Amino acid sequence: MIGLQGLPELSEGDDLAALLAGAVGRAGGLEPGDIVVVAQKAVSKVEGRIVHLSEIEPSDRARELAGPDGDPRHVEVILRESRTVIRSRPPLVISETHHGFVCASAGVDGSNAKGPDTLVLLPLDPDASATRLRERLRELTGVAPGVIVSDSFGRAWRQGTTDVALGVAGLEALRDLRGARDFTGYELRSTQIAVADEIAGAAELVMGKTSGIPAAIVRGVDAAGEGSGADLVMPRERDLFRG
Amino acid sequence: MIGLQGLPELSEGDDLAALLAGAVGRAGGLEPGDIVVVAQKAVSKVEGRIVHLSEIEPSDRARELAGPDGDPRHVEVILRESRTVIRSRPPLVISETHHGFVCASAGVDGSNAKGPDTLVLLPLDPDASATRLRERLRELTGVAPGVIVSDSFGRAWRQGTTDVALGVAGLEALRDLRGARDFTGYELRSTQIAVADEIAGAAELVMGKTSGIPAAIVRGVDAAGEGSGADLVMPRERDLFRG
Repeated sequence: MIGLQGLPELSEGDDLAALLAGAVGRAGGLEPGDIVVVAQKAVSKVEGRIVHLSEIEPSDRARELAGPDGDPRHVEVILRESRTVIRSRPPLVISETHHGFVCASAGVDGSNAKGPDTLVLLPLDPDASATRLRERLRELTGVAPGVIVSDSFGRAWRQGTTDVALGVAGLEALRDLRGARDFTGYELRSTQIAVADEIAGAAELVMGKTSGIPAAIVRGVDAAGEGSGADLVMPRERDLFRG
Repeated sequence: MIGLQGLPELSEGDDLAALLAGAVGRAGGLEPGDIVVVAQKAVSKVEGRIVHLSEIEPSDRARELAGPDGDPRHVEVILRESRTVIRSRPPLVISETHHGFVCASAGVDGSNAKGPDTLVLLPLDPDASATRLRERLRELTGVAPGVIVSDSFGRAWRQGTTDVALGVAGLEALRDLRGARDFTGYELRSTQIAVADEIAGAAELVMGKTSGIPAAIVRGVDAAGEGSGADLVMPRERDLFRG
């Protein structure tokens, strides 16, 4: 795992793939099979997924969910990014985004944004973002890496966040071992491994939240395939925890 | 990340640390700061945490939760390992174990066990298991690595399992960034990173479920500290999803 350093502060319209290609070059270049993990926030900034709190008029529902300690404008943005609120305890909101991700604050975040007035939203289509980065990196470097657009998600029942894969291109996301046999011959009947989430979490170990390293190369993991971030979202009809 | 190969099939009373030390030696030895990740199932086997289905008499509740497709003896074992059933859809049971872990089947598993009649339970105290392995590895190798006892857990809302840290010794489990400042000076008010879970997930990428590699060395991650697996369990009073 190689953290990619030296990326500038990003703005809408910046050619993130070109900046990544430069950082990759300084790190010795891409090898076939490499996976480039990019923090969602970097992708969202270049895609212009930013809102300014000063321009938001909160609804009554946002005021209610914000409670006395929250900013109702922030909650209003969360509600606009949400399909359903799953749980709330003011000012905390856990919701399902329009993509189907269930996470705190619909992924809306003020950290690493551009000043206290700005919030960064999730990319509209993280799989499409990953695919575009992969294609452009192929043009620029001659190697098409796997690409993961990652974000830090909390989990039910466990403390702390782990990074997960919101968008995936050029690698498997979910490894299906159903029907495979383990070392003693017992059939693994229902095991699917969220490989892309594990890779995103591994990359977080070299990226970090405070170090200004928004991307990493993960090398030496055999994850060839054509998965998507959508593969990692539990379908509503199988989900025991969506309601 | 270095998978540790060549471990034999394990039985109760085996000196797992000595077997790991041998495998570590064949992999070039331990370095200061190394973290050894060991699959829960290996630990449970040497600790004798095995039950035989043929010796289990299922209760009425187990028969009900098993439904027409499940094995009520298997569900009976799950109930004995559980404090509370969180959700069920026969034959699937998601419960809180006596340790406080919320997971499918209370971590009770038949894969990689010793034949179709046996089930492997979680270690009674995974933090104690990790601490014992760390101490014994120190004696045997002269280096005290961080140790994680890992298992594959499903997640609410997401498909697929990722490996997480049940037991931790000699490294941080949860990195607390509350009060730290990010690259632009915004205060990260509520960010805690489940570092040990991310390390366990990273190790899974080289361990795998079907390859007979029950342990790995993770090298080069700065995770010095004194955390525990218990740090990673959401306290009941803060948990929005326990009820």
